[in-house]
Amino acid sequence: MTAPPDIVRSAYATLAVTSLEDARRFWVDLLGFVVTYEDKSALYLRGYDELTHHNLVLRSGPAAGCEALAYRVRTENDLTRAEAYFRELGCRTERCPAGHTRGIGPTVRVEDPLGFTVEFFASASHPERLQQRYDLRRGAEVARLDHFNICVPDVPQAYEYYSGLGFGLSETIEDSSTLYAAWMYRKQSVHDVAFTGGAGPRLHHLGFFAHEPHSVLRICDIIGSLQLEDCIERGPGRHGVSNAFYVYLRDPDGHRLEVYTSDYYTGDPDHPVLRWSVKDPRRRDFWGHPVVESWYNEASPVLDLNGAVRPVSEISQTAESSVRVGADGYTAPR
Amino acid sequence: MTAPPDIVRSAYATLAVTSLEDARRFWVDLLGFVVTYEDKSALYLRGYDELTHHNLVLRSGPAAGCEALAYRVRTENDLTRAEAYFRELGCRTERCPAGHTRGIGPTVRVEDPLGFTVEFFASASHPERLQQRYDLRRGAEVARLDHFNICVPDVPQAYEYYSGLGFGLSETIEDSSTLYAAWMYRKQSVHDVAFTGGAGPRLHHLGFFAHEPHSVLRICDIIGSLQLEDCIERGPGRHGVSNAFYVYLRDPDGHRLEVYTSDYYTGDPDHPVLRWSVKDPRRRDFWGHPVVESWYNEASPVLDLNGAVRPVSEISQTAESSVRVGADGYTAPR
Amino acid sequence: MTAPPDIVRSAYATLAVTSLEDARRFWVDLLGFVVTYEDKSALYLRGYDELTHHNLVLRSGPAAGCEALAYRVRTENDLTRAEAYFRELGCRTERCPAGHTRGIGPTVRVEDPLGFTVEFFASASHPERLQQRYDLRRGAEVARLDHFNICVPDVPQAYEYYSGLGFGLSETIEDSSTLYAAWMYRKQSVHDVAFTGGAGPRLHHLGFFAHEPHSVLRICDIIGSLQLEDCIERGPGRHGVSNAFYVYLRDPDGHRLEVYTSDYYTGDPDHPVLRWSVKDPRRRDFWGHPVVESWYNEASPVLDLNGAVRPVSEISQTAESSVRVGADGYTAPR
Amino acid sequence: MTAPPDIVRSAYATLAVTSLEDARRFWVDLLGFVVTYEDKSALYLRGYDELTHHNLVLRSGPAAGCEALAYRVRTENDLTRAEAYFRELGCRTERCPAGHTRGIGPTVRVEDPLGFTVEFFASASHPERLQQRYDLRRGAEVARLDHFNICVPDVPQAYEYYSGLGFGLSETIEDSSTLYAAWMYRKQSVHDVAFTGGAGPRLHHLGFFAHEPHSVLRICDIIGSLQLEDCIERGPGRHGVSNAFYVYLRDPDGHRLEVYTSDYYTGDPDHPVLRWSVKDPRRRDFWGHPVVESWYNEASPVLDLNGAVRPVSEISQTAESSVRVGADGYTAPR
Repeated sequence: MTAPPDIVRSAYATLAVTSLEDARRFWVDLLGFVVTYEDKSALYLRGYDELTHHNLVLRSGPAAGCEALAYRVRTENDLTRAEAYFRELGCRTERCPAGHTRGIGPTVRVEDPLGFTVEFFASASHPERLQQRYDLRRGAEVARLDHFNICVPDVPQAYEYYSGLGFGLSETIEDSSTLYAAWMYRKQSVHDVAFTGGAGPRLHHLGFFAHEPHSVLRICDIIGSLQLEDCIERGPGRHGVSNAFYVYLRDPDGHRLEVYTSDYYTGDPDHPVLRWSVKDPRRRDFWGHPVVESWYNEASPVLDLNGAVRPVSEISQTAESSVRVGADGYTAPR
Repeated sequence: MTAPPDIVRSAYATLAVTSLEDARRFWVDLLGFVVTYEDKSALYLRGYDELTHHNLVLRSGPAAGCEALAYRVRTENDLTRAEAYFRELGCRTERCPAGHTRGIGPTVRVEDPLGFTVEFFASASHPERLQQRYDLRRGAEVARLDHFNICVPDVPQAYEYYSGLGFGLSETIEDSSTLYAAWMYRKQSVHDVAFTGGAGPRLHHLGFFAHEPHSVLRICDIIGSLQLEDCIERGPGRHGVSNAFYVYLRDPDGHRLEVYTSDYYTGDPDHPVLRWSVKDPRRRDFWGHPVVESWYNEASPVLDLNGAVRPVSEISQTAESSVRVGADGYTAPR
Repeated sequence: MTAPPDIVRSAYATLAVTSLEDARRFWVDLLGFVVTYEDKSALYLRGYDELTHHNLVLRSGPAAGCEALAYRVRTENDLTRAEAYFRELGCRTERCPAGHTRGIGPTVRVEDPLGFTVEFFASASHPERLQQRYDLRRGAEVARLDHFNICVPDVPQAYEYYSGLGFGLSETIEDSSTLYAAWMYRKQSVHDVAFTGGAGPRLHHLGFFAHEPHSVLRICDIIGSLQLEDCIERGPGRHGVSNAFYVYLRDPDGHRLEVYTSDYYTGDPDHPVLRWSVKDPRRRDFWGHPVVESWYNEASPVLDLNGAVRPVSEISQTAESSVRVGADGYTAPR
Repeated sequence: MTAPPDIVRSAYATLAVTSLEDARRFWVDLLGFVVTYEDKSALYLRGYDELTHHNLVLRSGPAAGCEALAYRVRTENDLTRAEAYFRELGCRTERCPAGHTRGIGPTVRVEDPLGFTVEFFASASHPERLQQRYDLRRGAEVARLDHFNICVPDVPQAYEYYSGLGFGLSETIEDSSTLYAAWMYRKQSVHDVAFTGGAGPRLHHLGFFAHEPHSVLRICDIIGSLQLEDCIERGPGRHGVSNAFYVYLRDPDGHRLEVYTSDYYTGDPDHPVLRWSVKDPRRRDFWGHPVVESWYNEASPVLDLNGAVRPVSEISQTAESSVRVGADGYTAPR
């Protein structure tokens, strides 16, 4: 069995959007993402701390969907290793030359065992360093991509697959019979990827890191100022899992993003797993607030290597939202 | 007609609680109120900025209720004026000597035309100044009482009555036919008193000022740490009305308090009124989040001068919660 | 003796600047003040919370100086009263019609007994309300003018004069023989005016209120980003006096401003004075940091009613900066 | 040549203090460090996020000094590798059994080529997880150790030595002829160790991570409240290097610590180095404030494996503090 590629971190995603103009207004004008490059068909965006070409590609398409989730690997050899690894798993793969994805070196793209299109790369161009350009910061003042959260019908299967790729487990939501959700990491943070039990493959959300709770509150205030409050789906709040301060927003195509601040270091070799009971009303919101229904049910379709929408399988385990706990989603709000 | 007393500000409230021990655990141990004095039957609490004896008296009683809302008046003459003013209005009044309310000079207590027991005083003792004792700050780090919010069946009536007392109007929620809520002030802030349309007289909540949004977030985090999240009723969030950052909590007897930060200066003689449409989903939460049902429906009973529970009249106007707007309370959460 | 005018608050200042273009770059582009109106000779600026026409007028002039400090009075009658009051004091006065100062009703201008040109007004136009336009906020996110700080050779004289005008005393720096500095208020905050002992009449600084410490830190970060760090003179820090969080900046003409957050309520009739010993190293900076020499020595000239620079008298009492205390200005930095 | 041990991160330091009682008052009562264990001769302290036994050992000793800086290595094999590696470098080493350092597995201790006593360990016990015990947080709310900053007479030599150990370079202060300071990392942050040019070996400071600028401001406010402001040596401020928000404090023995918040991710294989000119007044303080003289000159002695004070060599290169730039330390404060 080929060793898996040495994955460094979650790095960027490519989303198909139905109106690039509307998407630009949301992601750039409102949220304040930095434009590294743009043309008629796509926008390449990054956070203020990101030192590579982009954290997000928005590409004009006929329907909204997630074209790819991209992980950085350590060396070019890891691309070769990725190709072999996924072929052995029976996955469709393709290799693209440098620049096929703008600003990025050669890539290997795969349809992974969970049904997601995943892109691996080992090198990227370095745009201007903006970390200390406080004069430019606007909107949510997003620093960088933090994680992907994906909907999968079978959470243990996703856990096994990502364990095989060398991801560590930081936190779970579980009970004696079911693993409802799991958070896994390569970089030294709570996660690069998390699994939400549900119909899948679908992209639940992209998590972007901001430095301060102030940024989370401020983007909500700006959104209210502009009477765009419908795009605030859930939060701000404190997560139980990860301890991060968060808000979930929806873009004009319904793609969900999270502005996420301050989790914790996970780099020690024996980093202990934190297991939350599904009965703990604080697991999803440390202040006990209910999760809104749309947050459990809605997600972005996934596109395959040909750009076609992947069929979705229904959840094959107990849904977390069906567990009746005091403050949770499907129970009545207090 | 006698001129009304010159009211300086909302100053303190007296609440009856069914377990002083439980109340102490909540208000002192958890929220961090400063104890000015306590004995077997009562607790006298203040915020870290308050320079008079107390902002809150918790008195042991057979049933939970609001014994009194207290306003400071400018001089002892204003007490005499208050007595005359309320007698002319046909209200029951009583005069109590200095010390009858601990730490407070002579008082005039009245059953006001809205059915609330209100206490007026002109002088109070000064406890130790703790404004710069950051080493002592805990919990919500409450600075001082900011306002009373009361449930009244007829909001225009309450507005007229408080206008007569010389209160200015800062903000309203209204439509062409109904005044749903109003905020009125004597001190140079958004309010000393606000009216929520509903069965009344009842006390909706006591608003306490904190200096920073951080205090609002932190008290929620502390509450989550202690698995007491049921006491967080609504928020944190940004108010449309007042622009303050807030959270609503419930004490063990169900008394509601708000931790409230940073509104704005209203001291100019021609301070303009801000009128919110009841159709604006941002009026109660600037981020468009629904108001929970309990927040509209539940409130504390009011006690009369004899300590008996005042009968409650049903609301006599259209209820704000019955107005179907996108994000509001009685509509489904998104 | 005529009663003094009923002063409501410090409202705006007019500064002469030698380059309106440079001043615009500093106050508008960098600090984010809102432009209510501008023409070739002047800029009318306000903070995001201000509901009247302006907090600051910058007027092009041959030399930098302070043309006027403006206080709002309660009614038009107070203008007449002001005229009589200052004439009785032997001060030169002049009355100007509405619009003479743009956006402002009729004014009475005086050369006050301390040598400052002071403008009184009772009415102003109301520009668009921007308090909840978080989408527009930039720079230091200044909300409104908070206070004037003036250099006077004789602090007790300034105290007596402003006491006569009905100002309350909130804090002092003193020892058994000298009153080094004093803070006095009309609105319910720590001050509308403060006195720094030194050659005078000169304007020490204009204090502008911001809602959060974050705004103070952020404007410094923006200034660093633009390599303009020379304009940060002192702070950020916590004041002992007032307990506010602060930073002092200098504009291109050397005019000093303070961004100032969160002091405390002073509206009670018997509000107690806080007296700081000049020996307490925390009085000027609660963290004990030295005051830089320029902060004690430099200030803006004052212009008389004819626009001529007022002659300056040397300090006639012990200078605060000459008191050798552990951490203070003229002692060596640690 | 033996490969170096695989170092995970800077983990803890052991300091000798002359009064454990005074040290406890400072580190525990004031700063709020968590006590994992204490006895008559030592205190074992950690931050609220730390999941291993301690970040700091304070041991009672005859004179103040730094007994050891400890790095975590990946596996027990790395201990063997460390022993071999340092013996080849001609360094004195010693191996200690598990528990020799309380809460820690077997260690290898060395006198490194720079003259510091360094301890390597691969395993530690896990105390109670307190990351979400907001109810316990006090003082500076320190989360974990972030880095060591050491004084060395020859910065390039230190850079070469730590490069050999596999550390990456994140930032420098330099000019065409001199490397004045360098920041190096193993974990994915700006640094685990930094070098300040000066007489050495000495410990310049221990850097502890906090989650929010609020924690930095708050500990200063608490210190001011207790009239202990002499222990605030420098800051709060924003670093140019690292972009972190910081304050430097001194303990009763003069040991220096930094409370340090929010730097940036450095985990990418080609992470670019940020090189600051020594002439940039923003390099040490992004707001251009001078560095106080004591910060450049004072540091803690280092103890050898026998507990004896290491002799100190004078700096062998141009001192950064001798470079006359506008706002820097040895020039006059503005």
